[in-house]
Amino acid sequence: MARNGMMKLGLSIRRLGYHTAAWRHPETRADSAEDFGSFLVNVLAAERAKFDLVFLADGLAIRAKDEPPGSLACSNENVELEPLTLLAALAPLTRNIGLVATSSTTYNEPYHVARRYASLDHISGGRAGWNVVTSWSEMEALNFNREHHLDHATRYDRAKEFVEVVTGLWDSWEEGAFIRDKQSGIFYDESKRHVLNHKGRHFQVRGPLSASRTPQGRPVIVQAGASEQGREISAESADLVYTNEYLLSAARDYYRDLKDRLPRYGREDDDLKILPGIQPIVGATRQEAQDKFDELQALIHPLPGLASLYGLLGDCSGFDLDSPLPMDAVFENKTSNAVKTLELARRENLTIRQLYQRTAGKAGIRQIIGTAADIADDMEQWFRDEACDGFNICPSHMPHGLDDFAAFVVPELQRRGLFRTEYEGRTLRENLGLRPHINRYQARR
Amino acid sequence: MARNGMMKLGLSIRRLGYHTAAWRHPETRADSAEDFGSFLVNVLAAERAKFDLVFLADGLAIRAKDEPPGSLACSNENVELEPLTLLAALAPLTRNIGLVATSSTTYNEPYHVARRYASLDHISGGRAGWNVVTSWSEMEALNFNREHHLDHATRYDRAKEFVEVVTGLWDSWEEGAFIRDKQSGIFYDESKRHVLNHKGRHFQVRGPLSASRTPQGRPVIVQAGASEQGREISAESADLVYTNEYLLSAARDYYRDLKDRLPRYGREDDDLKILPGIQPIVGATRQEAQDKFDELQALIHPLPGLASLYGLLGDCSGFDLDSPLPMDAVFENKTSNAVKTLELARRENLTIRQLYQRTAGKAGIRQIIGTAADIADDMEQWFRDEACDGFNICPSHMPHGLDDFAAFVVPELQRRGLFRTEYEGRTLRENLGLRPHINRYQARR
Repeated sequence: MARNGMMKLGLSIRRLGYHTAAWRHPETRADSAEDFGSFLVNVLAAERAKFDLVFLADGLAIRAKDEPPGSLACSNENVELEPLTLLAALAPLTRNIGLVATSSTTYNEPYHVARRYASLDHISGGRAGWNVVTSWSEMEALNFNREHHLDHATRYDRAKEFVEVVTGLWDSWEEGAFIRDKQSGIFYDESKRHVLNHKGRHFQVRGPLSASRTPQGRPVIVQAGASEQGREISAESADLVYTNEYLLSAARDYYRDLKDRLPRYGREDDDLKILPGIQPIVGATRQEAQDKFDELQALIHPLPGLASLYGLLGDCSGFDLDSPLPMDAVFENKTSNAVKTLELARRENLTIRQLYQRTAGKAGIRQIIGTAADIADDMEQWFRDEACDGFNICPSHMPHGLDDFAAFVVPELQRRGLFRTEYEGRTLRENLGLRPHINRYQARR
Repeated sequence: MARNGMMKLGLSIRRLGYHTAAWRHPETRADSAEDFGSFLVNVLAAERAKFDLVFLADGLAIRAKDEPPGSLACSNENVELEPLTLLAALAPLTRNIGLVATSSTTYNEPYHVARRYASLDHISGGRAGWNVVTSWSEMEALNFNREHHLDHATRYDRAKEFVEVVTGLWDSWEEGAFIRDKQSGIFYDESKRHVLNHKGRHFQVRGPLSASRTPQGRPVIVQAGASEQGREISAESADLVYTNEYLLSAARDYYRDLKDRLPRYGREDDDLKILPGIQPIVGATRQEAQDKFDELQALIHPLPGLASLYGLLGDCSGFDLDSPLPMDAVFENKTSNAVKTLELARRENLTIRQLYQRTAGKAGIRQIIGTAADIADDMEQWFRDEACDGFNICPSHMPHGLDDFAAFVVPELQRRGLFRTEYEGRTLRENLGLRPHINRYQARR
């Protein structure tokens, strides 16, 4: 089922990059997680490369457990700019690139979220997107008046209703509702103003929203749910879905499963774009790419390295890092993931250092190490085989991970006719090839 | 007790201006409440005039009651940009002016508020301010899962604790906490990171905040509480207080009362600046100023005009607007405010139209109508008599209300040595003449 057409590309920036040791790389600015100028430079580079959007992941807490002791202080996962504030500041300095931030449905109120993203859409001229997350971590709960985080089912039930309220509020005012006729003194057309009056299990929200219909009708909705509940929410309301698949076959299965859910919500394949995350390491030769990767891997400090094993295997800090794990002596009550990790270590005869480099270096994202042609080949195969509609690029370290991709891989994709050389539209929705959003009240007429 | 020194000036922008009929004025752009470019032009004008700060008031709902029917559709009090999003977008395009937004303690979580204002402070290089409000209206409650709004005492109790948590989170990281030593792999100094572990009546927040110490130590805190509880919160934690006094004597009393509360919190007179709001209408002559004002007053549409009387006197829409109120026939159960209004109408023999022009035109802010010298005289007297430390300028209609003030009154104040001709510092805190904020943990060493 090979297909033609162009792929979509998002850029994901988190602090200094997705590699654990990014901040220690000689070419990164270690303080750039709170430096607006660095973000501006990177987002302008992405816009020059015609990326569809820049995406900011988010969490509402700093990791709490210092296991093994001292590992926290060796990690840069602590301070960063709040995503919506950062994207708002970037909006007037950019022109075409989409601006997608993350906001949690577990620790927010729908009225605030609807309003902030509507404002960003107005300020950016139609480039706002909301990544809907339910917040999974215990440590976030502790910053929001809870002893424990909500269970998965409750979080997703709340998320589903949250999205319903937000999209309802975004339809408060139809197109053309505001007449603003100075002569007659009439500011708006009463028939085009709608009071939501939502009363549900989790929320009670009257409306209307204090924001008019936004330039792209409503902001783009992004999700990343892999669970059954998450997939249904995505099928019902997401315009864009992030995934983290490692295998082409699994990605194809996920892709087909999600697209097949669309018709029951009156939607078609093209109404939802699926972008798996990749971390490309680009070299002029394969060896150069591998050397770049090895340089980053060698910069993983033992303490955060061991921290990445801690949840799985417990404290390995007492052993010689350059010897294999003494498997039989430790690790009672092994989980299935722990067993898999131990099998991997035994099979490849890995030292503890090599093992933590595997776990800490990945950050849960598929790495592609090679030349621009290698990386483009891989991306082309996934795209043509309907494993995705494009990719979410998660550079290893900023700005170089992005600059390499923009300088070498993007032109290769363009030569192959797989990626745009100019933006098609004015709004994120237009560039993603999504249909215009029709206000629900207008649709009913 | 006359005094020397310079006054502080804030600019308050709400939609198209503080006069009810601002949007109908021939010179305003009626759609500018959601137009970023208009805000940018106005804030750059305020920065050229050396204003200390721009301030955005806020509410979390649109007025719900359409009394008398049709009045809502004649009001422009509906859509507007969300203040923090707007200020973030303005931050990189401005250089010196302070950026103060409003966030409610009743409908927010302290972790979010601490984080967003810290981010704005980082992005703006030390110019963020948070106006703390408790949200008074029923209609806001209806957008946040409530049938009724919280009572005053509970709201203020929550506000006090909310401010404690936010300021606690802002002290999470001491100055110099981030070493970011690539060689050793140590990112921060553990002794300069502090976990708040707040457990109070309203909130339970662990921390630390995912934002480092901000450029001005912490954002400036602004309040407007006139009640006993509000005054205590201001005395304890506010850097800046807004008031709405009409009479010099009352303003002097309030000023002294608030300043006298400071010592019990270890603070001095200069640690808190008090700025009453004024709406200046400037003319080359007094007659020209009066004409400008009359033009605005004449633009008040009868329906929103009558709406401004509705809460006080009930529905007056059945009467001849150009005749006096038929006092004896209506208005049972008069409140003391209603009685005062009726007495005013009788004393000055006002028609219904004249009466609603009085109530709707004011918007609760003291208007000063006259030449630049008249307005500067008034401001100078209030400042020298210790009724204030400066003013919160609330222009009648944008951009002209601001432009007139900047072109004529500011130079007059500067000639008198009452206002700066250049910014003194880099941060809002420095320009306001406030002492640097010392991190609480550093202070204890």
